Amino acid sequence: MYFTSESVEALVEQFSRLPTIGRKTAQRLAAYILKMSRDDVEMLANALIAVKDRVIHCSVCFNVTDEDPCPICKSPKRDQGLVCVVEEPSDAVALERTHGFNGVYHVLGGVISPLDGVGPDDLRIRELVERLRNGTSGDSGSVPIREIILAVNPNVEGDTTAFYISQLLKPFEVTISRLARGIPIGSNLEFADEATLTRALESRVSF
Amino acid sequence: MYFTSESVEALVEQFSRLPTIGRKTAQRLAAYILKMSRDDVEMLANALIAVKDRVIHCSVCFNVTDEDPCPICKSPKRDQGLVCVVEEPSDAVALERTHGFNGVYHVLGGVISPLDGVGPDDLRIRELVERLRNGTSGDSGSVPIREIILAVNPNVEGDTTAFYISQLLKPFEVTISRLARGIPIGSNLEFADEATLTRALESRVSF
Repeated sequence: MYFTSESVEALVEQFSRLPTIGRKTAQRLAAYILKMSRDDVEMLANALIAVKDRVIHCSVCFNVTDEDPCPICKSPKRDQGLVCVVEEPSDAVALERTHGFNGVYHVLGGVISPLDGVGPDDLRIRELVERLRNGTSGDSGSVPIREIILAVNPNVEGDTTAFYISQLLKPFEVTISRLARGIPIGSNLEFADEATLTRALESRVSF
Repeated sequence: MYFTSESVEALVEQFSRLPTIGRKTAQRLAAYILKMSRDDVEMLANALIAVKDRVIHCSVCFNVTDEDPCPICKSPKRDQGLVCVVEEPSDAVALERTHGFNGVYHVLGGVISPLDGVGPDDLRIRELVERLRNGTSGDSGSVPIREIILAVNPNVEGDTTAFYISQLLKPFEVTISRLARGIPIGSNLEFADEATLTRALESRVSF
């Protein structure tokens, strides 16, 4: 024990179970909590519990939401005919940050990964097919889906999942696309890994 | 809003108010909370509230503790005659990590800082003088204090506070010391700042 209070040490222990938070950061956070007002700490504790009490999955896109359907699925400003398939809600967050996507999402809840015992049935793939069959069903009624963007992560599991879905969707009249791969903006050719550089060469576009 | 759930966004907001946690880390933590079991999240929330409900200040050393006096003050293994004066409980944590200090602490609760409106009366300086007058009063009874180590941070406020306390303690028969200053272990002379290097030269010791 380093802090002379068991309660503080218990909090350090809890904090250090979170990702990106090591022992030292956990101690620093606990020291900060000690100085915060009781009201502020209660707000944090309540926010944590609220996430577990209130957050459900949107019945259309399976993203996290407080009310069903989620704000994106029921927004009249969103293009319901363009569906971006992502692994997790945090991937949708990353895409929303670009302010460059005006369609809707479909959250798989993971990727096909036999080593981890995750098969197609553990993901919302059947629901995606169902969605394609019915058209999306946001508040704007039934809109036929024009295009599916497979925005999975660029690794073996992601590629497997994308391939599996693309095969499954072949019978439908829908454009299937995936995110471009290449040199990240602001990076340096010198430091790019071989796989990325090879892909960037192969996928070169005319000037 | 990036997450399609207000509850999740509220949690991101709460997380990002903590030190060392930026917006992106807060989003990552919130995504992790979403995946955690309700029980685990409750344990974290309860640990937060427990810190506010149970933690008090030790009546001897003013460190944080769940029971008065704190484990260090009532430990028979600790040298009650050697008192290390620190600014905050986290400074005591840093010293405990060294496993090299066997005395007890006195937590000031800050430093003298006129710019922030913190004067000597806002700190536990009077209590330190009182403690010296009575000897420490741990479970091991009244032990005379032999030495006071002023382990404040090496900056203007810390130095001011150390000087103030050293003047105040002059009437007492007690050794007053402070932590050595110099080149940190594992660092490089080339990159040491001038103030540190000057101090290391001045405080050079014979080989």
